[in-house]
Amino acid sequence: MIFPELDTPAVLIDLDIAEANIDRFQAHCDAHDLNLRPHIKTHKLPMLAKRQVQAGAIGITCQKVSEAEAMISEGGIDDVLITFNILGTGKLSRLRAIADKVRLSVVADNTTTIDGLAGAFSDADAPLSVLVECDTGAARCGVATPQAAGELATYIAGQPGLTFGGLMTYPPAEQERFVQSWLTEAKDLIEASGLDVPVISNGGSPGMWQAQDVPVATEYRIGTYVFNDRSLQDRGVCTWDDCALNVLVTVVSVPARNRAVIDAGTKVLTSDLLGLDGHGHVLGRPDIEVAGLSEEHGVLMADSINLKVGDRLRIIPNHVCMVSNMLDEVQLHRGDTVVGPCPVAARGKVR
Amino acid sequence: MIFPELDTPAVLIDLDIAEANIDRFQAHCDAHDLNLRPHIKTHKLPMLAKRQVQAGAIGITCQKVSEAEAMISEGGIDDVLITFNILGTGKLSRLRAIADKVRLSVVADNTTTIDGLAGAFSDADAPLSVLVECDTGAARCGVATPQAAGELATYIAGQPGLTFGGLMTYPPAEQERFVQSWLTEAKDLIEASGLDVPVISNGGSPGMWQAQDVPVATEYRIGTYVFNDRSLQDRGVCTWDDCALNVLVTVVSVPARNRAVIDAGTKVLTSDLLGLDGHGHVLGRPDIEVAGLSEEHGVLMADSINLKVGDRLRIIPNHVCMVSNMLDEVQLHRGDTVVGPCPVAARGKVR
Repeated sequence: MIFPELDTPAVLIDLDIAEANIDRFQAHCDAHDLNLRPHIKTHKLPMLAKRQVQAGAIGITCQKVSEAEAMISEGGIDDVLITFNILGTGKLSRLRAIADKVRLSVVADNTTTIDGLAGAFSDADAPLSVLVECDTGAARCGVATPQAAGELATYIAGQPGLTFGGLMTYPPAEQERFVQSWLTEAKDLIEASGLDVPVISNGGSPGMWQAQDVPVATEYRIGTYVFNDRSLQDRGVCTWDDCALNVLVTVVSVPARNRAVIDAGTKVLTSDLLGLDGHGHVLGRPDIEVAGLSEEHGVLMADSINLKVGDRLRIIPNHVCMVSNMLDEVQLHRGDTVVGPCPVAARGKVR
Repeated sequence: MIFPELDTPAVLIDLDIAEANIDRFQAHCDAHDLNLRPHIKTHKLPMLAKRQVQAGAIGITCQKVSEAEAMISEGGIDDVLITFNILGTGKLSRLRAIADKVRLSVVADNTTTIDGLAGAFSDADAPLSVLVECDTGAARCGVATPQAAGELATYIAGQPGLTFGGLMTYPPAEQERFVQSWLTEAKDLIEASGLDVPVISNGGSPGMWQAQDVPVATEYRIGTYVFNDRSLQDRGVCTWDDCALNVLVTVVSVPARNRAVIDAGTKVLTSDLLGLDGHGHVLGRPDIEVAGLSEEHGVLMADSINLKVGDRLRIIPNHVCMVSNMLDEVQLHRGDTVVGPCPVAARGKVR
């Protein structure tokens, strides 16, 4: 039986693999003179954030204020970028508290957000660094044109309590040349207006091994690489052996020759498909499809399922960042040796 | 501004609507002499479980041992059915502890599960009631034929520490006649063998208003009706006004005339589609599509989005049971009046 000391379902993290992933991509960034700023949304664990910084990362990326609070609570992190438009007096006062503890920067793509930041930091000892979020084709947040980026940079630079920190984008996949030209045009425009552009922050897991193909960028943000998952294996970005997180499950029913049911459903594996068929990869059983999930059941299908009630399996999920958000704790191990449970400090931190 | 005292994203529950939902379906079951055994997987809140019992429910349904533990921790619940094959010494000893506190029954669809239950309860003061889970067409767990149900009933009855409790099915939608004939055949077979069939437990939200169309069933299990959601509105089972849970969000970016971005993504609304297009219904703005989610962003699309940064919206999710699993607490209110936060006692309880 796999890890008989652990009850199922359990989220397992192999620290040996995670550390190798951290070191390998750090070496890639070092080789291309690119600063690495890992996104903690994948692991949500202060211990791995610190490990990323020890390996050479210049700081971390968070999406929400509460994630940043969770990450700095233990010490060992002194540089945080929050890549989200932060609004509202509650979040802004928490942002001030974070800025007292670490070197903090944030992003904005509109003047309402900037006005709020300026109001909160107008009497701060040091100005808050604000990057302009740029939409280079992903059609989520971000100003739509290099010209608009230039206007917002000037607006930030004119606010009390703020300093223009540079440009940030979450790029579309496989559009490195377009992203490079977009960001270069914005940089040139802003520099022509007399402002420095100290940071240009690019990111994304699918294009991680092509990070250097946007040379105007000074730093790269990435999350999934620490664990990897089925979506990145499918894209050829990693192998199954590079996947540090999997879900340990028990077969609870074998109702038919071609079907078995496991004790993990959407409350562990989630409904995230990321364009894939099925809900995960069963290690050692590529013939099995994780065909359907309800909250607590996972239905496995194969021509011959060849499993019995009580068997244990390990499943690599489609999207690892969401799986690490589902349980209060993960189980750390190194190969066959269990290290122990670890609370997921930033789980459920959405504000 | 909607609920300015609450930070976003927040999960809101209107207790007035939830209580009306509880009372309306209880009255429907009462009118048809059907016992109601609500599934707590939707609300995950002991206070609403107790409210369901006060309204006339005979007990509650849980899917996992840890859900049952969370529900009985506060008292007020004295009858629990766990509709899952329970395996392993850890869970079985917890099951014994639950049986010391409440009237407990469980289900099984295989002899391995039954052997484990018998081993754990062989020296118990009272036998554990075990129902046979039947696959009446949903193709998840369950024995495949009425004959197999009869064999397993006899097997349960022959075990020390166990008593045969009846039949349980999670039925396919809109197949009431087939479910009725399947369960009737199994009941007749088992009674012919000399065993009583004290309980026949049917369930499911899509067919809730047709629960009486399987008259062989003695009880009905249902979860979603307490809150309702976009999937049930789409099926005509409820109206938008019957939806007790919605997600309060803030517009954080309006990058284009047809697009806005909110501060809630899959970490609140989840990726559950349940066959629908889009990720939720924006109250008061049926023209808006919740077109895409990433973990922390939701992308709204409309011909003319007509929103500004800082606006608040309320979104009814596709699948409410998963949304109540995402945050540590929900915000209770009655109409426009905030009641206060409530911890989600059974959130993340997957073991």
